[in-house]
Amino acid sequence: MRTEICDRLGIDVPIFAFTHCRDVAAAVSNAGGLGVLGAVGFTAEQLEVELQWLDEHVQGVYGVDLVIPSKYEGKGVEGLSPEELEAQLAKLVPQGHRDFAEKILNDHGVPHLPPEEKHNQLLGWTATTVAPQIEVILNHPKAKLVANALGTPPDDVIKQIQDSGRLIGALCGSVKHALNHKNAGLDFVVMQGTEGGGHCGEIASVVLWPQVVDAIGDMPALAAGGIGNGRQVAAALAMGAAGAWTGSLWLTVEEANVPPAQMQTYIDASSSDTVRSRSWTGKPCRMLKNDWTEAWEAEDTPNPLGMPLQMMVALDGVKRGHRYPEQAKDVNFNPVGQVVGMMNKMERSADVVQRLIAEYLEACERLNKLNNA
Amino acid sequence: MRTEICDRLGIDVPIFAFTHCRDVAAAVSNAGGLGVLGAVGFTAEQLEVELQWLDEHVQGVYGVDLVIPSKYEGKGVEGLSPEELEAQLAKLVPQGHRDFAEKILNDHGVPHLPPEEKHNQLLGWTATTVAPQIEVILNHPKAKLVANALGTPPDDVIKQIQDSGRLIGALCGSVKHALNHKNAGLDFVVMQGTEGGGHCGEIASVVLWPQVVDAIGDMPALAAGGIGNGRQVAAALAMGAAGAWTGSLWLTVEEANVPPAQMQTYIDASSSDTVRSRSWTGKPCRMLKNDWTEAWEAEDTPNPLGMPLQMMVALDGVKRGHRYPEQAKDVNFNPVGQVVGMMNKMERSADVVQRLIAEYLEACERLNKLNNA
Repeated sequence: MRTEICDRLGIDVPIFAFTHCRDVAAAVSNAGGLGVLGAVGFTAEQLEVELQWLDEHVQGVYGVDLVIPSKYEGKGVEGLSPEELEAQLAKLVPQGHRDFAEKILNDHGVPHLPPEEKHNQLLGWTATTVAPQIEVILNHPKAKLVANALGTPPDDVIKQIQDSGRLIGALCGSVKHALNHKNAGLDFVVMQGTEGGGHCGEIASVVLWPQVVDAIGDMPALAAGGIGNGRQVAAALAMGAAGAWTGSLWLTVEEANVPPAQMQTYIDASSSDTVRSRSWTGKPCRMLKNDWTEAWEAEDTPNPLGMPLQMMVALDGVKRGHRYPEQAKDVNFNPVGQVVGMMNKMERSADVVQRLIAEYLEACERLNKLNNA
Repeated sequence: MRTEICDRLGIDVPIFAFTHCRDVAAAVSNAGGLGVLGAVGFTAEQLEVELQWLDEHVQGVYGVDLVIPSKYEGKGVEGLSPEELEAQLAKLVPQGHRDFAEKILNDHGVPHLPPEEKHNQLLGWTATTVAPQIEVILNHPKAKLVANALGTPPDDVIKQIQDSGRLIGALCGSVKHALNHKNAGLDFVVMQGTEGGGHCGEIASVVLWPQVVDAIGDMPALAAGGIGNGRQVAAALAMGAAGAWTGSLWLTVEEANVPPAQMQTYIDASSSDTVRSRSWTGKPCRMLKNDWTEAWEAEDTPNPLGMPLQMMVALDGVKRGHRYPEQAKDVNFNPVGQVVGMMNKMERSADVVQRLIAEYLEACERLNKLNNA
């Protein structure tokens, strides 16, 4: 299954693993794929620690996934520190929204964080917080690929990363987004179908993938949204994708730093249990349906705000859920794709990579048999 | 791409074409696939005429798609004629819903039907109207396959059709539905992803197909939802499907009896232009977004009723839209899947079948090259 982007990156198989856990990223890179660390939520200092760890534990290369706003400058935020920017934004959040979120968590008995675990709220989600992350990445030669989770990055960021010998790409949920990425000169796109976990569009993978491939010509297009099995990798490559970009799959591996109670929730869930909801981040994001998502859907409750304001409302819930996963079982933030229905046991990351390759070859063999019958 | 179900049916390629137009069904069957006529909306007498025409124009075999309610008996409708049943149901429709539908159509200047074109409302959508259709099918030996669009058919219908030497299957949108079909002894399932046109579930094809294939074992599973290109057929077969079930694709072929204005709407639409709406049939159904679907979505308007009551509200709109497609351009019933974004020109049905086969082979070749590189 080796495609051209494998040669450019020096990896064996075009299996890309998006994960917030460095152990998973390292395991996938060392198994022949490419681990991609999600950097959102890390300060520049924390990211430096993570990438140093990856440098030590990865034999080849790895990637980093950022949230780079397309309006990197402007909007009157020049010169504001992240803290000042956040203070400005905080004034735009209605108290009723904060109260509603607080009530959902309290009604479910989710404890408050201890005061010593207070946190910055918007790390990596605004222009002023992402620039220092990029500086960090540029100091780590094994960090060979940068992906942007939301929109086309600004020209200067693209140039800066490409000039350093790295590849930069971005996610897209439609042909239009893909063409924007191509016109901006990105090296690859990640085309994510609506079934994918986290932020996603409305168009499903089977329809999206071949259209993006046709639209962007010889620019590599990685298939995302729904992939948890090598047969799906074969399907993606048959439709012209240059590789498979996976995310949900790595929530139930041994190396994942997902609390056991939350991991069990993923293992138990079926493909019917997800919903595209704006209730955590303000943008449509696929996650497990639960009391939190239902509460924000109800008719007589506040409507979710936009991004990043809804995140300021919900981030306390994310942190409390992460800290107290048992108590937050029914109101936790569980971003995951419909492929959750295929994630039925805990596996080792390296075994997952091997399984994907074996299933891929089996699927190719199935086609060959049909054609030679 | 010949699979076992091809041998059972005596067809060359496992390309199934669901269509309401006999000319399309005949063209696909004669090109080596299987045309499947949607029988909903036909009286038994009309269906007899259609199938006689198909007998004359199809060299091999064809299929018929019905809407057989799973509760075929009972619910206090025994002995009621279709007209009596409809009169009973009509009493359950609030006048406010009828008025709202009427207002949408009138506001858009869609003329009323001439009095001589009055119509029965619920043909084929209730137990009492579908039984005579089955009798008709059993008299046509070339009608070799029966598919049920909604749910598992009752045991006596399954037995009746299988005893006659025909295959009977049903659509499903989840593993659970597929297992119900298997346990009822059906011959095949059509697993339809959420991207598909018409009634559909929430699970996308890439995630649904491999799960259903694994769940039902050696029972043939046809892949539906999003297929408009042979690369997608290759993807489906790579994931273990026994064939491709297509529908939307046949709305923009030369032989389709779709009014030119409506066909142009399909040709112009992108994959972002569809919505899953209950506004026409009462069940979630994928169609083009327009002023009608938006009107029923708005906050201060009636909520769609269930099936079949919403159909009684909306059927006049279907008929007026079909009769006056120009005027109804923005309020017409345009059931179609997300693959509409790939339907960009009118083609001949036989050419579509040939194209699907050629693209399929190209996709298989792409995989072979990757694996032998």
